[in-house]
Amino acid sequence: MLPVAAGFGGRTSWRRWAALSRARAGCRAYVSGEAALYRAHGEPEKVISVEHVQMEQPGPHDLIIKFLASPINPADINMIEGVYPVKPATPAVGGNEGVAVVEHKGRAVKSFNRGDWVIPARPGLGTWRTRAVVPEWDLAHVPNDIPLDAAAMLAVNPASAYRMLQDFVTLLPGDYIIQNAANSTVGKCVIQLAKHMGVKTINVVRDREDLDSVKEDLDDLGADFVVTESLLAGKDYAREFAKVPKPVLALNAVGGPSATNIARALAPNGTLVTYGGMSKKPVTLPTGLLIFQNIVSRGFWLSRWTENTAPIDRDTMIMHLASLIREGRLKVGPSKRISFTDLPATLADRSRGKVLIEFDDDRFAATKAYIS
Amino acid sequence: MLPVAAGFGGRTSWRRWAALSRARAGCRAYVSGEAALYRAHGEPEKVISVEHVQMEQPGPHDLIIKFLASPINPADINMIEGVYPVKPATPAVGGNEGVAVVEHKGRAVKSFNRGDWVIPARPGLGTWRTRAVVPEWDLAHVPNDIPLDAAAMLAVNPASAYRMLQDFVTLLPGDYIIQNAANSTVGKCVIQLAKHMGVKTINVVRDREDLDSVKEDLDDLGADFVVTESLLAGKDYAREFAKVPKPVLALNAVGGPSATNIARALAPNGTLVTYGGMSKKPVTLPTGLLIFQNIVSRGFWLSRWTENTAPIDRDTMIMHLASLIREGRLKVGPSKRISFTDLPATLADRSRGKVLIEFDDDRFAATKAYIS
Repeated sequence: MLPVAAGFGGRTSWRRWAALSRARAGCRAYVSGEAALYRAHGEPEKVISVEHVQMEQPGPHDLIIKFLASPINPADINMIEGVYPVKPATPAVGGNEGVAVVEHKGRAVKSFNRGDWVIPARPGLGTWRTRAVVPEWDLAHVPNDIPLDAAAMLAVNPASAYRMLQDFVTLLPGDYIIQNAANSTVGKCVIQLAKHMGVKTINVVRDREDLDSVKEDLDDLGADFVVTESLLAGKDYAREFAKVPKPVLALNAVGGPSATNIARALAPNGTLVTYGGMSKKPVTLPTGLLIFQNIVSRGFWLSRWTENTAPIDRDTMIMHLASLIREGRLKVGPSKRISFTDLPATLADRSRGKVLIEFDDDRFAATKAYIS
Repeated sequence: MLPVAAGFGGRTSWRRWAALSRARAGCRAYVSGEAALYRAHGEPEKVISVEHVQMEQPGPHDLIIKFLASPINPADINMIEGVYPVKPATPAVGGNEGVAVVEHKGRAVKSFNRGDWVIPARPGLGTWRTRAVVPEWDLAHVPNDIPLDAAAMLAVNPASAYRMLQDFVTLLPGDYIIQNAANSTVGKCVIQLAKHMGVKTINVVRDREDLDSVKEDLDDLGADFVVTESLLAGKDYAREFAKVPKPVLALNAVGGPSATNIARALAPNGTLVTYGGMSKKPVTLPTGLLIFQNIVSRGFWLSRWTENTAPIDRDTMIMHLASLIREGRLKVGPSKRISFTDLPATLADRSRGKVLIEFDDDRFAATKAYIS
């Protein structure tokens, strides 16, 4: 059995953890579980394996948490590949997001109780595992009266959508925004959160065979307009949207011509926020758009926001998003659920969509957390 | 003789002026002069002609001003070509910048006296002419104890350099900035103003035969580093500048790979400000630079700044720049002086550099301003 560091991959290196472990002479690790481990960076399906591991003995500020569900996000993949700007020391546990239940708390733990639902306070925790021993400051609360799916997926995609609607432009009811990749999880959250704010959305989706059903889905969430990339790129867009107020904010997860086109659609002084680059093409803006239209081009990275934000402010956002979920105003769900044992096979599937790993397998119920 | 509107080309159309003129029945225009007129947009050397014109009779709030010197700026050319976002109604007088002396003031004029030096308060005045009749609110003061060249060229290039150093990033002594087109008039002003602020400059210039003499010129102005575009584009830049703090501000007048490369050279959270596009290529930023490095890409347009600024604040800036010129800290000069009659020939010369039109020709001294 392989001991696994509990802390943030990017912060407490494996080497350092091993040193700490050795220093605590006489400690016996007696919490164990299954974890999706990688020992080297590379293609996730090749480097990830689900293994039985034993964990560090919990200290007075530690919790033992049992994961309930964890999504697969694009950043998780990039981090395993080693192409993400945060590169955890290996061996590391995959996954950065997920919801867990508190099974045990150390005697000095003040903020959490047994049975509480918790989520990682920052990226890097390693959420693709059945159990973890984690210091309390690495966790945050999430209400346990919302659907498990939503709790597991709240902290990354809905939070990103929420921040991008809050942090760049003061959006007033009646304002317009435009976004590409509108059919992504973030895109769908943007539609719903904007609707709640009274903000109108122009939603750009790829030209596709199932366009009608995608349009219907987005309409159901409250999309005001759904347009294809090819319509946006041509002259018809200007004609069709001649009487629609120009958007003040554009959200870009694609790059390349798509990013240029949503920037062109902006009102003067508008802001283009880039949070993804699905086309793997850079963001290109004509000089005149910058100089004469005063378009501002910025980037958004949730990890940076989290890093620069007081825990109480993040908690407030999580509670707010949870309340929107509770009220039925914000729906967040995976397109596919898998059992933890299916993780390696799922990672090999490039068309996987938004996947939620569920840890309710009997095999994992047998995982032990002996606490005296 | 052709009557010419005195006001801002973009604001008071020719048609409207003619109507106003007709309305003032019995008025006789009795101020005349030579003006570089264009009746249609097109190539400047083809559409501009220097003609003798008569002007509207000055009203109580008007001044008669006699131009002393006016530069040719790139925006002047673009405006005549009709490719500038501000497109004056034709016939219009070329030129947006220049210094004039007050010859006569209307009885209600409070801010100016005979003999004062004045500059346009905004773009669009039409400065390529010997005399103009202008309402006082279209003019601003410039001190008349600085060199005429500097006074004529203060309001556009040095002002742009000054604003870009003031308005985007709080620059502290010891901070670094990077700019391309460092050998331009704006570039040279940036070097001198940055030096005065204690800010270090990395100056990118095109690879060229006279590189040594360009380097020497920029060194003399106070440049900390001068590098070529090809050095910046290659791997040597990172090695050579490994121990130099990364710049917090990048100023781009070129676009294309040059803009991308100065953006790449920025420190995290740095700002790229685009104020020109000499390469006619757009500004392209890798997605990661926006998301993970948090680089902000913005545009600067002096006309917008002027439009949004109280006259007193612009006056304050002009006085400050004039004081730097007086102290010898800021040197601004044309690379070539021409007589007004040579203007059409000069416009045809693509390699003209920074040209200053001087109006001291005997022929123009004979231009009349009869005031009772």
